[in-house]
Amino acid sequence: MTAAFLTVGDELLIGQTVNTNAAWLAARFNAEGVDVVRMETVGDDAGAIAAALARALEAADIVVMTGGLGPTRDDITKRTVADALGLRLVRDEGVIRDVEAYFARRGRPMDPVNLPIGDVPEGFEVLPNPVGTAPGLWGEVTDSAGRPRVVVMMPGVPYEMKQITETAVEPRLAARRDGVVLHRTLLTAGEGETMIAERLGDLDDLLGDALTLAFLPELGTVRLRITAKGADRAAAEAALDRAEGLMRERLGHRVAGEGTDTLEQALGRALVEKGLTLAVAESCTGGAVAARLTAVAGASRYFLGGVVAYSNEAKEALLGVPHDLLEEHGAVSEPVARAMAEGARRAFGTDLAVATTGVAGPTGGSEEKPVGTVWIAVADAAGTRAACLRFTNDRTLNIGLAASVAMNHVRLSLDPVSTVG
Amino acid sequence: MTAAFLTVGDELLIGQTVNTNAAWLAARFNAEGVDVVRMETVGDDAGAIAAALARALEAADIVVMTGGLGPTRDDITKRTVADALGLRLVRDEGVIRDVEAYFARRGRPMDPVNLPIGDVPEGFEVLPNPVGTAPGLWGEVTDSAGRPRVVVMMPGVPYEMKQITETAVEPRLAARRDGVVLHRTLLTAGEGETMIAERLGDLDDLLGDALTLAFLPELGTVRLRITAKGADRAAAEAALDRAEGLMRERLGHRVAGEGTDTLEQALGRALVEKGLTLAVAESCTGGAVAARLTAVAGASRYFLGGVVAYSNEAKEALLGVPHDLLEEHGAVSEPVARAMAEGARRAFGTDLAVATTGVAGPTGGSEEKPVGTVWIAVADAAGTRAACLRFTNDRTLNIGLAASVAMNHVRLSLDPVSTVG
Repeated sequence: MTAAFLTVGDELLIGQTVNTNAAWLAARFNAEGVDVVRMETVGDDAGAIAAALARALEAADIVVMTGGLGPTRDDITKRTVADALGLRLVRDEGVIRDVEAYFARRGRPMDPVNLPIGDVPEGFEVLPNPVGTAPGLWGEVTDSAGRPRVVVMMPGVPYEMKQITETAVEPRLAARRDGVVLHRTLLTAGEGETMIAERLGDLDDLLGDALTLAFLPELGTVRLRITAKGADRAAAEAALDRAEGLMRERLGHRVAGEGTDTLEQALGRALVEKGLTLAVAESCTGGAVAARLTAVAGASRYFLGGVVAYSNEAKEALLGVPHDLLEEHGAVSEPVARAMAEGARRAFGTDLAVATTGVAGPTGGSEEKPVGTVWIAVADAAGTRAACLRFTNDRTLNIGLAASVAMNHVRLSLDPVSTVG
Repeated sequence: MTAAFLTVGDELLIGQTVNTNAAWLAARFNAEGVDVVRMETVGDDAGAIAAALARALEAADIVVMTGGLGPTRDDITKRTVADALGLRLVRDEGVIRDVEAYFARRGRPMDPVNLPIGDVPEGFEVLPNPVGTAPGLWGEVTDSAGRPRVVVMMPGVPYEMKQITETAVEPRLAARRDGVVLHRTLLTAGEGETMIAERLGDLDDLLGDALTLAFLPELGTVRLRITAKGADRAAAEAALDRAEGLMRERLGHRVAGEGTDTLEQALGRALVEKGLTLAVAESCTGGAVAARLTAVAGASRYFLGGVVAYSNEAKEALLGVPHDLLEEHGAVSEPVARAMAEGARRAFGTDLAVATTGVAGPTGGSEEKPVGTVWIAVADAAGTRAACLRFTNDRTLNIGLAASVAMNHVRLSLDPVSTVG
């Protein structure tokens, strides 16, 4: 079963809104075994919508449209779909009653401007909207070439679309499904796409005929996603098991997590499992390590805090870095990185601490320490290890990469067989 | 001039990645006076890419493709475009040298697996990638119907795509434009879109016939962009001057910056102008305020550092928050917020300090202090002010909003006529 998404809304074409609906829906449809083959976005224009609908009907068994179902004059999705399919719009009194009840719950009468919300292309099923006014619509139709097609329309408001998908669309998809589409995802850290590809070796051998592999590089991590499609779930799972096993074997400690894990989630889980606590001492990353660690819900179980020591005075006063060390080696140096990590571990009383000090740029570099030079140190009960990295000329990138590498070094410190640097 | 976007990547079709590139690019192209007429996403499949390219060439003057330019085997955009346009791929030695230099800066030789990065459809211009390996490509071509078209290809990695757009694509768009498209942008902070719209009053009067206004809400800020299109630059500038003057008058201290300013850039500039220094004490924002402040190049001129005090012990030890205060009022309280701000100001010896303490969620809320409750305090020579905010149930959103509000309260503290809260 295949699906094509069609998103309607001028706000997307001017960049005012990020289309998060498409990714959310795609994940849900894939999990239901539906292959999403294309996504298209057009403006609130009947001609553009009609042309896009024709392309979507050509491309896939199921066309999912979001946006343009409200009563305002730029909401023309329903009329355009009805015209394209040669269907009349019929006023559904049940929908009108639901909209009236929606306004009554808010202590207001329904303004007649909302009446078009009740218009339904004939033969379409109404999918109730438990959190808004415009319902979803599900139509099993025949396209101009005589093929059976499903057309689904939902409001563009994300939480309304999600509710309708979960309560009404997914059960209907499950009932129509044949075959499976399964994914297995590994998160790797510490090496780039090219090195990871090299370690994986012969991909034809790894994947066989049954699987495909995608490399998804992010900041300091590469996500590897293997996909199996087929009629037989057990065979697909077996092929995925085999490939995942080989990948884990070939990549070793470079595998940091799986599924939708971020590096900070994977690190957090590892810290919880081992019952260890962490603090940070940040100079060049300026709080980015702490911010990423605390973006994870429940981070307070293992993250006690951090010092952003942007000035030398702060490195001395809050982290106890000796003045002489800063004088002799400069703030961007191995001894200072080590002293910062040890200082944070002491100040917060944690099992581990990680420190960053470097030249984020765009200025401040020297011949000896060019922009992109970053020292990272991890202190724990076994001692302190430090590594020097050379990143890029871009400040944002340097901060992001240094934060990822810092977290990855903490992760590697937790595993006695892996080595840092 | 019209543009169609074509995004390539299986990761989008399975919902692993949200297509933020499309919205970013759309905003930039609109700002250059280019109308974006459609956006399409297809997988890493030559047939699908070729069909989508044909549709895009049909729809618009400029086709912008992102994704699928790397050396791994799922990266097939370039070959497909070359085949579709009847062009050979020619190895560009300049690109290869750039890629070699990229690896050399990282102390590694270039693996030959990267050589295909140098393949360029004949006649296409190379748009250098300052932060990655695969360059952008700009081709002025003729489609199958004999119409002049521009095809642009860029990597899908957002920061690479953005760099190439800013340095190479936007200047080329500006050069092709006829007439002027001028913008004036104001950054507002502290109030939502609805309140700002209300303060602006009658938009027909504000804008006249010559201008359009876009509201671009972000986290805790709303950007207002007025646009003038026309043949006459002087008339456009005059209309913009008038509207900007009226907007500044009606919005007062809610105007935090202009142009592409972020709140943190605007705040940084104000601190530099007044010669003041800032420190932060963060609990619920977990480093997000420091990270955003230090994302600005040159932040070390006014930002001395911060403490992320995630645990109560850290609030006591590093910020000197009295134990009794924490016991009596809890960490999420006005007295603790005040003590944190004052403690950070003392610890870093700064002119100003700002503190955040709240319930970011998703758990940890209570009847009295539900998820989304955040106290923010600003301490300076004149004393300490605190405010309580109620945000949402979403952790990410709460952290982002609290960080924005914290910075905005510092900004308002710098201006003796404005008031906080």
